[in-house]
Amino acid sequence: MAHRQAKPVLQEFALIRDLARRFVRRTPGLVQSIGDDAAVIQTSAGTWCHLTTDLLAEGIHFDMTWSSPESVGYRAAMANLSDIAAMGAVPRYLLISLAIPKKWTQPQIHKLYTGLMMACRRYDVALIGGDTSASKAGLFLSITLIGTTSQRQGLFRHGAAVGDHIYASGTLGDSLAGLRILTNRTTSDSVKKRTSELSRTHRQFLLRRHSHPTARVAEGLWLNDRRLASAAIDLSDGLSGDLRHLCEQSRVGAEIDLEKLPISSACRAYARAFGVSPIQLALTGGEDYELLFTAAPLHSKTIEQQARTRGYRMTRIGTIRPSRFGIQITSGGRTKPMPTTSYEHFR
Amino acid sequence: MAHRQAKPVLQEFALIRDLARRFVRRTPGLVQSIGDDAAVIQTSAGTWCHLTTDLLAEGIHFDMTWSSPESVGYRAAMANLSDIAAMGAVPRYLLISLAIPKKWTQPQIHKLYTGLMMACRRYDVALIGGDTSASKAGLFLSITLIGTTSQRQGLFRHGAAVGDHIYASGTLGDSLAGLRILTNRTTSDSVKKRTSELSRTHRQFLLRRHSHPTARVAEGLWLNDRRLASAAIDLSDGLSGDLRHLCEQSRVGAEIDLEKLPISSACRAYARAFGVSPIQLALTGGEDYELLFTAAPLHSKTIEQQARTRGYRMTRIGTIRPSRFGIQITSGGRTKPMPTTSYEHFR
Repeated sequence: MAHRQAKPVLQEFALIRDLARRFVRRTPGLVQSIGDDAAVIQTSAGTWCHLTTDLLAEGIHFDMTWSSPESVGYRAAMANLSDIAAMGAVPRYLLISLAIPKKWTQPQIHKLYTGLMMACRRYDVALIGGDTSASKAGLFLSITLIGTTSQRQGLFRHGAAVGDHIYASGTLGDSLAGLRILTNRTTSDSVKKRTSELSRTHRQFLLRRHSHPTARVAEGLWLNDRRLASAAIDLSDGLSGDLRHLCEQSRVGAEIDLEKLPISSACRAYARAFGVSPIQLALTGGEDYELLFTAAPLHSKTIEQQARTRGYRMTRIGTIRPSRFGIQITSGGRTKPMPTTSYEHFR
Repeated sequence: MAHRQAKPVLQEFALIRDLARRFVRRTPGLVQSIGDDAAVIQTSAGTWCHLTTDLLAEGIHFDMTWSSPESVGYRAAMANLSDIAAMGAVPRYLLISLAIPKKWTQPQIHKLYTGLMMACRRYDVALIGGDTSASKAGLFLSITLIGTTSQRQGLFRHGAAVGDHIYASGTLGDSLAGLRILTNRTTSDSVKKRTSELSRTHRQFLLRRHSHPTARVAEGLWLNDRRLASAAIDLSDGLSGDLRHLCEQSRVGAEIDLEKLPISSACRAYARAFGVSPIQLALTGGEDYELLFTAAPLHSKTIEQQARTRGYRMTRIGTIRPSRFGIQITSGGRTKPMPTTSYEHFR
């Protein structure tokens, strides 16, 4: 954690100290936080550490013309929290590196941290370190998140077996619909008219699903603790892309029933207003941060019952098939290969 | 580790798989490497994990006009290895995130990884995960490195006590001299003439010290294992800046004897040729990645004897003073406050 120069040196160090004072807190297992060459954590015996890292670049993953600094920070944390959720782990510690353009003001940077810390607090995650730098171009954020599980207990992408049921949590496509509402705000009158056809509630719901997504940490912990899932992945790149990763790692194929895809009424209303297919939004929309997982058929009843009791929305959307089957989608009795599209973040 | 789009999606995933195949290897404690939502490591009971992260931005920390992709990768890894060295920890696992400009070719990216892996292999560090993204501007690298020590055993910036001796490993200022040779290559005839006054050996030594620095991992482990140091920091921002961090965290002052600063004959030759002060290079030059540490006077003899036996260059350069003393430099019997300068990376 060499603190390279974003600004006149002292100003940068002052900023880091200030952030450290504001946001860092003591937490179990934390030996040394911001202020040394490395952060130090102590894990208890028989623990696995799950480490994930995500890099977000301005102009690729977000655009400051329609994102608030607070939402950028929040979403960056959530992308990593979702990876840890998909491992069935407890998110614990976070490191953040920022490359900050000269035009950013201190209040803007604080807002970004506020968003980040809002996400962290929701899951009781401690900020323990990071690095800051100047950027000659846009803003870059790199987050590393550490989660823990008991030894020999984690959800992986491999492990799905032929015949397993495929489930998705929550609803799919909302984030993409929300992003499109955001990015089309300033365009033609016809777009404005169509957007206005959406109820305020639906619009707010979709915008919120994009700007403040929810990582399914509790759901991942439940699936892992009860050993209910055979494989899992989080939906960051979109169902069609992420299912492919799970199938590759598990060396299996899959059949998805399009009529079963969980789609919110807000997303359906958006699709109606803009004359697009809600199925398409659900298949290709990224950044929903829902869980996609597989489970042996014998667990189906337990999963469905327990999910109901706990208030988790879990929808069975398909079945794992042999590898030679490939990945197919079915609708109205017709089956065809799933198109190879994946979510394109804002570009 | 959502793999966001640097390129047409499949191309990016192909690149990641390719890199995973080439560079990832099994290593003790590694449960899950690249290919899942997170990497998973298992630490043994009674272990501390040391986590450091560094962000390097093109145009701030390096310039591709005079840096090879291989050297950028090597130096990025070394910056983090040096942080772990200063904690007295064994470097173990590395995660790397890259934001890659469109104009970068696959061979260039491979060279960058080759440099990174060369540094990792030198210290037996395993690449276990990362993220890639497009960049609309320059190249950004973010590395997270995990090291381990036994519980309750680590070197920290705090812990220096009044009367402790201050030591530096290796020689100081070489990297800055090397950087200046690199950056001045294409300038005036007078600069070329001065550079040509340096012997080839000296020039190569300084260039190498900049492009392929050495993190003092073995030295850090030795100091920590034997409990010889009271505090330590790595010299990434330059002696004057980094000593200040150590003193702040330890709540002490310091007195540095300028005549004792370890300066290589190559750095002295450079200073002579360019009419600059070698002391100034040693005080403000960053990226030497040497260790700065303090030790109780009773350990002095042991440190000096053992360092000699092991072939470590360790020079006593000053003494810890009370906080009210501030940080002062002495030379020829005269004492004055150390100027508040810190290394400015290439800008």
